[in-house]
Amino acid sequence: MDSTVELYGAQTGNCIRAAIALEEVGLSYTPKLIDLSSGAHQGTDYLALNPLGKVPVLVEKEEGREPFVLTQSNAIILHAAGKVAGRLLPENDRERAIVLERFFFFVTDVIAVSHAAFSLRGSNMQEAQTILTDRMLATLETAERYFDRDEFIAGRAFSVADIAGFTITLSVKSELPWPKLPNLSRWFAQIEARPAVQRGLQVFNKT
Amino acid sequence: MDSTVELYGAQTGNCIRAAIALEEVGLSYTPKLIDLSSGAHQGTDYLALNPLGKVPVLVEKEEGREPFVLTQSNAIILHAAGKVAGRLLPENDRERAIVLERFFFFVTDVIAVSHAAFSLRGSNMQEAQTILTDRMLATLETAERYFDRDEFIAGRAFSVADIAGFTITLSVKSELPWPKLPNLSRWFAQIEARPAVQRGLQVFNKT
Repeated sequence: MDSTVELYGAQTGNCIRAAIALEEVGLSYTPKLIDLSSGAHQGTDYLALNPLGKVPVLVEKEEGREPFVLTQSNAIILHAAGKVAGRLLPENDRERAIVLERFFFFVTDVIAVSHAAFSLRGSNMQEAQTILTDRMLATLETAERYFDRDEFIAGRAFSVADIAGFTITLSVKSELPWPKLPNLSRWFAQIEARPAVQRGLQVFNKT
Repeated sequence: MDSTVELYGAQTGNCIRAAIALEEVGLSYTPKLIDLSSGAHQGTDYLALNPLGKVPVLVEKEEGREPFVLTQSNAIILHAAGKVAGRLLPENDRERAIVLERFFFFVTDVIAVSHAAFSLRGSNMQEAQTILTDRMLATLETAERYFDRDEFIAGRAFSVADIAGFTITLSVKSELPWPKLPNLSRWFAQIEARPAVQRGLQVFNKT
């Protein structure tokens, strides 16, 4: 079966997380850089892939079948996780539920709040931005408690929860009170050092 | 095996969605009403369940085992989906991916933006609230295109994507331009009429 996988994206947190997930499961894919600064995500070709004009988009092509097009970075991450049973999502029901609990902690309570703050930039809404950013940072700091007994965000194995937590932590690295966060600090260094994470960080890096 | 399931919550969108998921898979559970107005979610007992003080929380108790405690409404919904194979999440990889794509569309691009706007209430940040609310409504309207060929948000079967979309649509029902949204309108009426959805809406309704 002649099949190819493409990941359309740019150097954004959502795209890097999707790339890291693909790298971690060892799926071979071709990155397709979308130049956001030139508005390529609003062009006709790209809007045919994703009418919302957002990155990333995953496309799986197989001879004789319609391409399978998947938007939403988090859906791409979970789809990637499904490629290798047990690699990024435990097979046990309760262990998987806890991984997803912490995945959603980052996705809805941290990353989405950061995105909302970012969307108010360049305006005279500095106060609202600050409130949202401060809330996001305070919530992110509570992740320190996830490591009481374990090495990773959700237990003893690397998972989608670590992928969700990594890029947002990286993006606010200079704003976190690291001396108060010894567990998160150790975790961050460990995740950053993973070869698949390093590859994911470079996939859409043009510089 | 003597086991019980409890759902701690209140009359909020996150709790109603979790309740609807449990109702849809037919899981027997005891609702535990948390009085947010009296600050019960910030009491010692509740913080022991969820240190973030948020609702809902699912607790599964079995004789001879430590209780299983799960926070994050979206993790509860996906955990509930796992109780009956194929009921709320397709077993086929690509069909499941599309369901999750649309689930995350609502969770991250609509509900989370609505929550961010809500969190700025009661302040002098009316402009920021309006920008976020308008963006959320504009994004929600694009769900109209999901129904080109299908009855539900993600295909021909009811799924977690319909659960994610329903409560947020209900909460902004009076603000949507319904004449422009015939598919969404038909979908909304159909979901609202489901017995499990009606039961979920009443679980934490004190009035």
